Amino acid sequence: MTVQPTREDRFSFGLWTVGWQGRDPFGDASRGAIDPVETVHRLSDLGAYGVTYHDDDLVPFGADEAERDRIVQGFKKALDETGLVVPMATTNTFTHPVFKEGAFTTNDRSVRRYALRKIMRNIDLAAELGAKTYVFWGGREGSESDFGKDIGAALERYREGIDLLAQYVIDKGYGMRFAIEPKPNEPRGDILLPTVGHALAWISTLEHADMVGVNPETGHEQMAGLNYTHGIAQALWQGKLFHIDLNGQSGVKYDQDFVFGHGNVLNAFSTVDLIENGLPGSGQKYDGPRHFDYKPLRTEDLDGVWASAEANMRTYLLLKERALAFRADPEVQEALAVAGVADLAQPTLSEGESYDDLLADRSAFEDFDPEAAAQRGFGMVRLNQLAVEHLLGAR
Amino acid sequence: MTVQPTREDRFSFGLWTVGWQGRDPFGDASRGAIDPVETVHRLSDLGAYGVTYHDDDLVPFGADEAERDRIVQGFKKALDETGLVVPMATTNTFTHPVFKEGAFTTNDRSVRRYALRKIMRNIDLAAELGAKTYVFWGGREGSESDFGKDIGAALERYREGIDLLAQYVIDKGYGMRFAIEPKPNEPRGDILLPTVGHALAWISTLEHADMVGVNPETGHEQMAGLNYTHGIAQALWQGKLFHIDLNGQSGVKYDQDFVFGHGNVLNAFSTVDLIENGLPGSGQKYDGPRHFDYKPLRTEDLDGVWASAEANMRTYLLLKERALAFRADPEVQEALAVAGVADLAQPTLSEGESYDDLLADRSAFEDFDPEAAAQRGFGMVRLNQLAVEHLLGAR
Amino acid sequence: MTVQPTREDRFSFGLWTVGWQGRDPFGDASRGAIDPVETVHRLSDLGAYGVTYHDDDLVPFGADEAERDRIVQGFKKALDETGLVVPMATTNTFTHPVFKEGAFTTNDRSVRRYALRKIMRNIDLAAELGAKTYVFWGGREGSESDFGKDIGAALERYREGIDLLAQYVIDKGYGMRFAIEPKPNEPRGDILLPTVGHALAWISTLEHADMVGVNPETGHEQMAGLNYTHGIAQALWQGKLFHIDLNGQSGVKYDQDFVFGHGNVLNAFSTVDLIENGLPGSGQKYDGPRHFDYKPLRTEDLDGVWASAEANMRTYLLLKERALAFRADPEVQEALAVAGVADLAQPTLSEGESYDDLLADRSAFEDFDPEAAAQRGFGMVRLNQLAVEHLLGAR
Amino acid sequence: MTVQPTREDRFSFGLWTVGWQGRDPFGDASRGAIDPVETVHRLSDLGAYGVTYHDDDLVPFGADEAERDRIVQGFKKALDETGLVVPMATTNTFTHPVFKEGAFTTNDRSVRRYALRKIMRNIDLAAELGAKTYVFWGGREGSESDFGKDIGAALERYREGIDLLAQYVIDKGYGMRFAIEPKPNEPRGDILLPTVGHALAWISTLEHADMVGVNPETGHEQMAGLNYTHGIAQALWQGKLFHIDLNGQSGVKYDQDFVFGHGNVLNAFSTVDLIENGLPGSGQKYDGPRHFDYKPLRTEDLDGVWASAEANMRTYLLLKERALAFRADPEVQEALAVAGVADLAQPTLSEGESYDDLLADRSAFEDFDPEAAAQRGFGMVRLNQLAVEHLLGAR
Repeated sequence: MTVQPTREDRFSFGLWTVGWQGRDPFGDASRGAIDPVETVHRLSDLGAYGVTYHDDDLVPFGADEAERDRIVQGFKKALDETGLVVPMATTNTFTHPVFKEGAFTTNDRSVRRYALRKIMRNIDLAAELGAKTYVFWGGREGSESDFGKDIGAALERYREGIDLLAQYVIDKGYGMRFAIEPKPNEPRGDILLPTVGHALAWISTLEHADMVGVNPETGHEQMAGLNYTHGIAQALWQGKLFHIDLNGQSGVKYDQDFVFGHGNVLNAFSTVDLIENGLPGSGQKYDGPRHFDYKPLRTEDLDGVWASAEANMRTYLLLKERALAFRADPEVQEALAVAGVADLAQPTLSEGESYDDLLADRSAFEDFDPEAAAQRGFGMVRLNQLAVEHLLGAR
Repeated sequence: MTVQPTREDRFSFGLWTVGWQGRDPFGDASRGAIDPVETVHRLSDLGAYGVTYHDDDLVPFGADEAERDRIVQGFKKALDETGLVVPMATTNTFTHPVFKEGAFTTNDRSVRRYALRKIMRNIDLAAELGAKTYVFWGGREGSESDFGKDIGAALERYREGIDLLAQYVIDKGYGMRFAIEPKPNEPRGDILLPTVGHALAWISTLEHADMVGVNPETGHEQMAGLNYTHGIAQALWQGKLFHIDLNGQSGVKYDQDFVFGHGNVLNAFSTVDLIENGLPGSGQKYDGPRHFDYKPLRTEDLDGVWASAEANMRTYLLLKERALAFRADPEVQEALAVAGVADLAQPTLSEGESYDDLLADRSAFEDFDPEAAAQRGFGMVRLNQLAVEHLLGAR
Repeated sequence: MTVQPTREDRFSFGLWTVGWQGRDPFGDASRGAIDPVETVHRLSDLGAYGVTYHDDDLVPFGADEAERDRIVQGFKKALDETGLVVPMATTNTFTHPVFKEGAFTTNDRSVRRYALRKIMRNIDLAAELGAKTYVFWGGREGSESDFGKDIGAALERYREGIDLLAQYVIDKGYGMRFAIEPKPNEPRGDILLPTVGHALAWISTLEHADMVGVNPETGHEQMAGLNYTHGIAQALWQGKLFHIDLNGQSGVKYDQDFVFGHGNVLNAFSTVDLIENGLPGSGQKYDGPRHFDYKPLRTEDLDGVWASAEANMRTYLLLKERALAFRADPEVQEALAVAGVADLAQPTLSEGESYDDLLADRSAFEDFDPEAAAQRGFGMVRLNQLAVEHLLGAR
Repeated sequence: MTVQPTREDRFSFGLWTVGWQGRDPFGDASRGAIDPVETVHRLSDLGAYGVTYHDDDLVPFGADEAERDRIVQGFKKALDETGLVVPMATTNTFTHPVFKEGAFTTNDRSVRRYALRKIMRNIDLAAELGAKTYVFWGGREGSESDFGKDIGAALERYREGIDLLAQYVIDKGYGMRFAIEPKPNEPRGDILLPTVGHALAWISTLEHADMVGVNPETGHEQMAGLNYTHGIAQALWQGKLFHIDLNGQSGVKYDQDFVFGHGNVLNAFSTVDLIENGLPGSGQKYDGPRHFDYKPLRTEDLDGVWASAEANMRTYLLLKERALAFRADPEVQEALAVAGVADLAQPTLSEGESYDDLLADRSAFEDFDPEAAAQRGFGMVRLNQLAVEHLLGAR
């Protein structure tokens, strides 16, 4: 067994992850800043293949053009030296107080216009850096008072903004796709498009719906008590799993951004199983980067930061190994058969069968014995126990 | 002020609400059954306009044709006598153990076929009773083990089933629409289509998507910590708010099904405000029944049951009165203006403006002063306080 | 009806509440700092009677003695000018990164010693300012890894620290009592003494348990899905409700610190009812300050800050008025009687009755008919509806 | 590695666990009843050492004396034949509707008296069967309306009841201890003594506090978002961990009662580590039965039921093995040292040091450099990753 990451594993990290300085709602920074160039080199050494960024992670908000150029050139040089790629980029529309009431959906129109410009500017840079996915996390799109936000108008403005940006990207030939990142709350009391489902639903109303998908984050779905694996499975099934943010969360509470697996590790196991093995019936698979969006604990120094980056990848690789072993285990296969997992891929109606045929099929209803059918044991506990034992490396 | 419900208020109740006998996961029934005919008369006396049902609420599971006919005729007679209508009907695909692993999406194909037949049978009856909405609550569509359910195949089978039923309803000319009722969990560990968002997203993939909307329940969204008013606003905005289930829930826990308002009453206020006053910008409005899907507490006797039914309607009418007063209050209107609530309906780009124009507008970015713009106070707390004071009848 | 606060209402606010600058986990400050002297004057103008503080709210961390003296003198002058009192004080052992792993219970002993010194220093000042209650919120006492903290040793150290400080206060004759403020999580993954219950339990092990009580915060208990009114009722019953932090929270999520009532307003109603009317049977009453520990939304400017301070008091007074009316309403009294609320104060055994007598009482068991007794309707829904209608000012 | 349970492992199960028939709030039973005699034999074959029961699990509610005797004799015979013991017993004061408003704390005094008699009757039987622990789960002690229950009186009546029963047990010489089982909600909206903390706090007020401890259930604490390992650590530290209920729960939602480990398995790991290895500093250890209080999923048939019983024990033994390896790993020991975990057992003040000495120690404050001290990295992420890798059997 090796848990040494390689470029083929396609692990990527945001500059803001290892770069988080430990400032939280009740505390000041506990670590200094890390130069993005150093981050590129360190991530490369650890075996990652990609690095991602918010505009302001790379170029400080308010920097002048000269500083911006200098920073970007340095960053590109580091990418060249290491071979790291920038698979994804995104915009910070949440830190500066100008966005306190939102960006795409603030009640202040001048801020909405400013936000669009800030985003377009970074999309240009992202294209230059080769990013294929552009992520939108609308952390400030929301409200604390139910009476302070016209939700219909907000969804309309969100749509206007994304439609405009999509057209821009198409016209420029950037070859980029968009990915919406849902979150239920924090920093706003309630955030718009709070879950994978709400985002997918809203995307279906877009002019360029085909180029917009989702970027679900483990902890964000779990903050709503939802099953992350189920969420990304629906996105995958709808052809919309464009990017993924892996991390750890311990239940319904504040956004913890733990290391991947340092939370609900059993669900992390099914997540990796889905990513690596695809949906059982259709074989649909996610083929993008394995991106970690986490924060090194505030208790850590810089050594701890890099150890935490490594921990994400090690856990992923361990879970991948276990997921492959799980699927290959004959006893698991037998338990899956008992549970009828594969049977669900079979249509409920037979080939060519109409509802009239179904109505005429007495075995389906009149002669069907629900009491007898209810006796069937699905063996779900045994199957789950097999999964737990594979997770524990005990088989 | 009168809080005496009338037919014009269009309040409706499920047979299973007042009829709940108090059987819970840790306790036996605390009340006897109520005959549906009595329910119709009592609801009518209380001022409701409609009654809804699951097939098995009306006709016990396994009843023979003669008993079924007798019951249905008695029910219709009661409807005739009272003038009550049946605006909605639904199927019980969760109580009998044959559905323990699901109905549309169980791994057992024979049960899927049986479920479709059971539903079609009740759709026929619903049409006969005049129901315009048919609700699907997939309480058993889900799993406890991430490894026991192929989520892609499950969503596929769910789609197959609803597509078939939609075609059936169209062909029969029943003039009925479907409404999916989401729920995140309980009785399954995780339920498919867990929120309004997931349901809307999945609906967008249906063959007859136009005739399928959602039936959001207050408590179900709140069980995921989500803002119910926001959820129904998105559904309304997407033209999909086909029906509504009002009740009370006190946060993220088991499904409580309290009386409407006996939970998060501030959010209940914004819910009624949205239903009665519509989305502020577009004026889009829900125009269906005000349906209560609640359970009288297990501590109540039959008098308490009817008092609880009345309580739902009284609270709704009180909130409606306060919502109208809130919108009419000049101080509220001024606070809404300060908050810029109406401004959000204005497009971010001007009429005819392109992104090139936006890029050329220096006032939007180069000459925009984010520090100055960040100074704006939105007065959201004052606005919310005005809402609280209207809720409290203090203005 | 007047909702104009007076000194007699004993409303108090922390310097850090109105002084919060809007820095959150994803955003920079949106407002400037307010001088404590200005806060004292503004709170006085609004009708508050008291102001509270963390050492670092008043005197910036690291200020030299001269600056410290200057600030303290200015603050005392403002108190004198306005007549405002300082009923409570507390220590900031969470903002500076030196406390990143805890203060009383950090694994680093030198930091534990430093924390005790920092606290003692501020206790001296608190005594000088006349504070009668000293609060301890151990926001950093906790862990993110179950393996990084010896919980037994941590509770031991916490006890060592509080015992030492209690002895210090006794020896100095400060006449001060201590109040522990529980919180389940945030900023640590899990915080020690997470609820009112855990704090009360731990207090029972202290050397000077009699001088240590709790300071429950509305939102902190609700972050664990617990009923705040129940929590303070248990503390009151145990004679330990020494201080109170009122605010608003919308369910299980990050710590929102909304204005009191801008969350679960129905529970806020029962909270005020308990504070003002006491425990129904025993009449035990909380007699300390009505302290608000909230944060003005980040969307507000300074006008909004002061409006938000006022909102807390107005809502409290409105709820107080409604609580008095509720208890005075004959229909409520009748409903309380039907529910048997007062009967619970009657002992289960009669005066002088022994368990042998109970065993000999055939009416209690052998001749008791559980089926008949189970028929009793408690009318809890009607009673709750009366509460809702009083809350809504509709009776 | 062997995961074959033996008597020495002291695993026990409630009759109601494997005996659960699958009746849930939305569904009828999916399995038949199992005779307690069969359960005893099956549990014995699986390697358990003990069986526990509610009175009504063994002898159906309302059975006459003859049936009661017949059943008890049969049960004792099965115990004799297998060597299984009854380490714990408890009373069902929640299923019958007579308890719908509570047992110890119902507003109906006649029901309170009846409840005490029902409990005393079963305590006699429990003593006869050799039970050393008697558990009280007050599932119905609570309320849905904040206005329907006098919390002070309720805690008083609870105390009266337990005090009386404690005296009874003492006088009878039963040698039994009591253990209170907390739960935050479900089936009541809010349950009294909602967490381990609240129960411990209330116990401190009892007349015979020394013979009353707690019986914390994994899922019950996790339903409040609390850390189960932390909870039992506090109980252990207070000398009050008298019994334990292990199971699985997936976050803040309804009470799931999954197999142990089929939920938050990382926390289950630290739970087993604490049970087997004790509190690191003091070495305090739990020495009671490893009792599983879970429910086999409703999807299972009887084979699945027994497989699920086995799964609890297998998972426990696997986690035990990993916990021993974790503590023995030199790299873990080194990481624990870096984190300073053992240092917390060292008092903050030196032997004989007074607060005056501390005040005189300039190195503690005046010469202490908080900036320098804040640099320390605790290596918590690395330590946690080592735990995850041990959990995964990867080291």
